[in-house]
Amino acid sequence: MTVMDDLLAFQRRTEALSSVAERLGWDQETVMPRGATEQRSEEMAAMEDVLHERRTDPRIGEWLAAALPQNEAESRIVELINRDFTRACRIPARLATELARTTSLAQGVWAEARANDAPDDFLPVLDQVLSLKREEAAALADGGDLYDALLEDYEPETTGAEIAALFDAMRPRLVALREDVLGAEHQPEALTGHFPQETQLRLARICASAFGYDWTRGRMDLAVHPFSSGRWQDSRITTRVVETDPFNCLYSTIHEVGHSSYELGIDEDYAFTPLGRGVSMGVHESQSRIYENQMGRGRAFTGWLFSRMSDAFDGLNISDPDSFHAAVNRVTSGYIRTEADEIQYNLHIMLRFDLERDLIAGKLDTDDLVEAWNARFLRDFGVAVDRPANGLLQDVHWSVGLFGYFPTYALGNVYAGCLNRAMRDAVPDLDPGLARGDAMPGVEWLRENVQRHGGLMPPRSIIEEATGAPADPAPLLDYLEEKFTRIYGL
Amino acid sequence: MTVMDDLLAFQRRTEALSSVAERLGWDQETVMPRGATEQRSEEMAAMEDVLHERRTDPRIGEWLAAALPQNEAESRIVELINRDFTRACRIPARLATELARTTSLAQGVWAEARANDAPDDFLPVLDQVLSLKREEAAALADGGDLYDALLEDYEPETTGAEIAALFDAMRPRLVALREDVLGAEHQPEALTGHFPQETQLRLARICASAFGYDWTRGRMDLAVHPFSSGRWQDSRITTRVVETDPFNCLYSTIHEVGHSSYELGIDEDYAFTPLGRGVSMGVHESQSRIYENQMGRGRAFTGWLFSRMSDAFDGLNISDPDSFHAAVNRVTSGYIRTEADEIQYNLHIMLRFDLERDLIAGKLDTDDLVEAWNARFLRDFGVAVDRPANGLLQDVHWSVGLFGYFPTYALGNVYAGCLNRAMRDAVPDLDPGLARGDAMPGVEWLRENVQRHGGLMPPRSIIEEATGAPADPAPLLDYLEEKFTRIYGL
Repeated sequence: MTVMDDLLAFQRRTEALSSVAERLGWDQETVMPRGATEQRSEEMAAMEDVLHERRTDPRIGEWLAAALPQNEAESRIVELINRDFTRACRIPARLATELARTTSLAQGVWAEARANDAPDDFLPVLDQVLSLKREEAAALADGGDLYDALLEDYEPETTGAEIAALFDAMRPRLVALREDVLGAEHQPEALTGHFPQETQLRLARICASAFGYDWTRGRMDLAVHPFSSGRWQDSRITTRVVETDPFNCLYSTIHEVGHSSYELGIDEDYAFTPLGRGVSMGVHESQSRIYENQMGRGRAFTGWLFSRMSDAFDGLNISDPDSFHAAVNRVTSGYIRTEADEIQYNLHIMLRFDLERDLIAGKLDTDDLVEAWNARFLRDFGVAVDRPANGLLQDVHWSVGLFGYFPTYALGNVYAGCLNRAMRDAVPDLDPGLARGDAMPGVEWLRENVQRHGGLMPPRSIIEEATGAPADPAPLLDYLEEKFTRIYGL
Repeated sequence: MTVMDDLLAFQRRTEALSSVAERLGWDQETVMPRGATEQRSEEMAAMEDVLHERRTDPRIGEWLAAALPQNEAESRIVELINRDFTRACRIPARLATELARTTSLAQGVWAEARANDAPDDFLPVLDQVLSLKREEAAALADGGDLYDALLEDYEPETTGAEIAALFDAMRPRLVALREDVLGAEHQPEALTGHFPQETQLRLARICASAFGYDWTRGRMDLAVHPFSSGRWQDSRITTRVVETDPFNCLYSTIHEVGHSSYELGIDEDYAFTPLGRGVSMGVHESQSRIYENQMGRGRAFTGWLFSRMSDAFDGLNISDPDSFHAAVNRVTSGYIRTEADEIQYNLHIMLRFDLERDLIAGKLDTDDLVEAWNARFLRDFGVAVDRPANGLLQDVHWSVGLFGYFPTYALGNVYAGCLNRAMRDAVPDLDPGLARGDAMPGVEWLRENVQRHGGLMPPRSIIEEATGAPADPAPLLDYLEEKFTRIYGL
């Protein structure tokens, strides 16, 4: 056994235990009896204890100092273990405990405040979370930028300043496109009716299969908020059903298939190493978005879906595939991020990114947060927030300490735009495949050019190698303008 | 923090982790994608590593030496932690690894040998398992009896000699009753037909509810071999469906409800301590058996079930409740333990108990095992085993190293017999309740007198306190003779 072997063997066990903890989370959100919440907290806390102890085990430092990687993959593994070890050791145990306690409390307070539309009930505890997160950021940053230190957990190897420059460059075209679309003379008809759960789920399975979901290494269950969970040989998806809106179920499913397929598509040699998972939340989101949007909401696939749904539901209120495509991509004015279309979604993210960056930098107080949110919303969306539950209180993220997470959603869209342009150039059979309900030509290109690499390269290198150019917002913006100009006859 | 507090806090985490490992096992048998087996092995092995390390942590020895229990429950907790710690420390790591490796291999070999009806393919690896188990027993026994040392894992605080005396006293009456029943002039009609899965599962849920299964702390899924899993706030049951035999599904369900209800019925103050689980496999089995047999297969409950099944399946080939009761309790000559009725089941166990005791004692070689099995079967059952798959090869237990487990099934029947007599004296509303599909009067008596105690008292003390007399086989034998004499008109 070399030092490198020792390090890999230790890491292998840690990765397995981390996978167990994630599986517990899946269980809790899908199949766990509702009376088991206290027990599950104890179980999760016990797993977290074990994982924390392993992640800060001093032997890792000794192995890292002496390990001799034999190839590119081993070098990257050492680099990633070193990054995680350094970060884990920088957070004092007292702070970790306090963060866990406070965010657990804050999540409950947030849910109640949202239900009561009462931001003042939430802001004091949010302030506590924020000050703990700033403390954590300071510990992690070691003199560097606080926000960048938090961002590293979700989108390593980028900075808040880079993202700000990217988003600032995108905003004007998105705001303009939003205005044009909402002001267009002809507005598409919405799909209406009652769509039974059983039929929706049957169609969702067909859609998942169309996008190549590997049912021997996955499964689909219902969850309140759809998510995907797990990796290597076992990555499960969830979906939800709203019986008045089948697109909710079908596009949630395709989105989660994108996430799970990424995990399942990683080179199997990387299993149980830090290379064996999606490299960043942004690249992860690029996969879910390109499955859902650029492929799933395109004219080719919706043409096929129109005929499947017409059959399954014995006719629809929409009678031709072009109108159906327009219904799938319908843009309406709204307050809620998770309900937003491809254009407005990015504006929702940019708002949150700028606010959270100011919060972490100490330039914005939680006392002024509602006002700042509402002013910004009015500016970008042209509409005043009607009530806090439709504004600041809509997202759980900040209550549970997720500062630095939001921008990865829009980064994912930017990456998806880049990948979509390259994929369309490289895969002539893409649209013909989608038009017959077969996304595999695209899926295979993504697997080969993105997914199989796992954590082998930094996020932006993956995009650059796959597309032949650095990540850039132009392909996404061009795609959106072209698509919505056509649909809305602008 | 006192030393006792430290010990309890450490144990609490260990119990939580052990519960996580059990939940992984549930996942594997019910919902896991079939392609995830290798990954799951790694995950289980990682959990086992963590648990083994905790169970042999030298701090436990120090805490045990200095802990000052403040009450009866704490004294018992210390006693049980001490027992487990002593046992865990006695098994050399090399032996534990070798046992895990060999039994994992042997289970596959056994399955193949059973499929091919080829005992010679299985006996060599069984011999390896046996010799490792004898080595383990010697390490655990520390000079004492080898079989007793293994038995302690499943039925602590009893001995092989005591069980042998008990079983030897029971055997003649069981053999005689078996002969009388099979020789009776009038043999009951069997239930026949096709019983759709959906309807069986709906009825199974109704039966589980009739026995008070707490759905807020449990759930039901399908599994190849039904089992129950988990404790405290989360104890799940599984069942299976054979569309020609609805009793398989319904009585498996009631059986597993008995196991789960025991775990869920334990005083919640004992959660995350060694008191917070069933005290022994024998007492566990007493609960599943008394639910399934003394209550579930009694005339009162089957009368109610007859009417529910007649409705659910639009009529049955059996048209009156007495004949239905006889069909539920029908005795036929057969080779397979898991398909046996209440009489023959115990004879199956006694055969295995005597053979495994001789194997562990070195009085019987695996080379002579098939012959010994077949000779004993002929003697007790009056029938020659037709092929090894119906003899030695039918059970997985020995291949996975479960020596000392079998007798707990029959001990459970003996305990159930004792409890049934006391419960019927104490609960006048038992049969009237069962006749209207409500087992709660009996369930509540069992919860109060058995289940809530968890591990607080040794197994036999629990039975003795609940019934007012030491455990004794007479109530079970009296019950069986009375019941089958009536059904068969002997």
